[in-house]
Amino acid sequence: MRIDIISGVPELLRSPLEHSIVARAREKKLTEIFIHDLREYSDDKHHKIDDYPYGGGAGMVLSPQPIFSCIEKLMSERSYDEIIFTAADGVPFKQQHANELSVKKNIIILCGHYKGVDQRVRDMLITREFSVGDVVLSGGELPALVITDAVVRLIPGSLGDAESALTDSFQDDLLEPPVYTRPSVFKGAAVPDVLLSGDHKKIETWRSDMAIERTRERRPDLYKKFKKKN
Amino acid sequence: MRIDIISGVPELLRSPLEHSIVARAREKKLTEIFIHDLREYSDDKHHKIDDYPYGGGAGMVLSPQPIFSCIEKLMSERSYDEIIFTAADGVPFKQQHANELSVKKNIIILCGHYKGVDQRVRDMLITREFSVGDVVLSGGELPALVITDAVVRLIPGSLGDAESALTDSFQDDLLEPPVYTRPSVFKGAAVPDVLLSGDHKKIETWRSDMAIERTRERRPDLYKKFKKKN
Repeated sequence: MRIDIISGVPELLRSPLEHSIVARAREKKLTEIFIHDLREYSDDKHHKIDDYPYGGGAGMVLSPQPIFSCIEKLMSERSYDEIIFTAADGVPFKQQHANELSVKKNIIILCGHYKGVDQRVRDMLITREFSVGDVVLSGGELPALVITDAVVRLIPGSLGDAESALTDSFQDDLLEPPVYTRPSVFKGAAVPDVLLSGDHKKIETWRSDMAIERTRERRPDLYKKFKKKN
Repeated sequence: MRIDIISGVPELLRSPLEHSIVARAREKKLTEIFIHDLREYSDDKHHKIDDYPYGGGAGMVLSPQPIFSCIEKLMSERSYDEIIFTAADGVPFKQQHANELSVKKNIIILCGHYKGVDQRVRDMLITREFSVGDVVLSGGELPALVITDAVVRLIPGSLGDAESALTDSFQDDLLEPPVYTRPSVFKGAAVPDVLLSGDHKKIETWRSDMAIERTRERRPDLYKKFKKKN
């Protein structure tokens, strides 16, 4: 899988792509990730990539020219399954989207920019728009990294332990149950007896009960979906 | 405002904190951000910070000892308003949370870890748990960066343009209207006439109509909230 990330602040993206599971997946050649500096595609002699909004108002708007030049160049080299734009008013990115994207071959992620991008870019180039919830950020770089991480870890071989992704939160509309590790008593607080019992059937029942209970308490919206299906 | 971020992969956090609005706010001394490497707080001779889960299963769990040691040290030096944990099963982080946190003095953000942290940490230390939506990530570092960015940009003086934050999406339960910049015609697509009219009253009306329309189309949940209030 190839991911092309386009940004006006490309240096911001560096360290998260060089560590953890994303870095390992790149080393194992499970994914190729390319970062494109929008300034390099600007026809402007000062490499400007934004301009004042028509009609006035605060904030700068990303200009269409550098974005079209960059995306048209990429599209002339290979075909892309999705051209994603990250913005506060996009669809909140969920596990189901990560699942869908993880089987694609080539995707572009255009990082949004505070106060937005010229609407013609969104109308003419973009196929999907995602946010990371109802919150305003300085730019779309962190959401692009969230999407990349969520997608790359689903590519078979990315995780050290193949079983892990299947027991993640949200894959079955439930949150995960509480987890504990050594020591069995810490600052007077003991690990629940059942987890030390060695009785795998009882442990599974406890975990399933706790997952349902935690979901019911914390996320009634997910719990409702779960109840409908089960 | 002081933010202490605790992570087992501290290098991952580096580049996003060194660019854009967060970097400028640090330079202007509007915020101090400290990164703490969990491994430095481990009593284990190999600086181990995680261990197998009790009861079996895939994935490693963050041990309580290094986290308690780090947070107890910080708490002995100053008092903290919130100790935040980032995890897939936390409350989805929203603009209202960013608003709340932006007026705090000292906060700790403990980055979650794939497959979780010993539940006793959550029970005994953590005051708030946040996610960036219903999606599973390799760790809580990107959510910690999302929270940091959303909060820091609200500190007065962070944004170049004081007016900007007030017209953001979500501050009034509405998405923002489309924005356009030069050129007025690009690849045959023209900017809406009203934005070129110079008639500020008409422009405001158009923007308000478009914001409501976009919210109704894309986010019926937000639109319902907006309609109730207006």
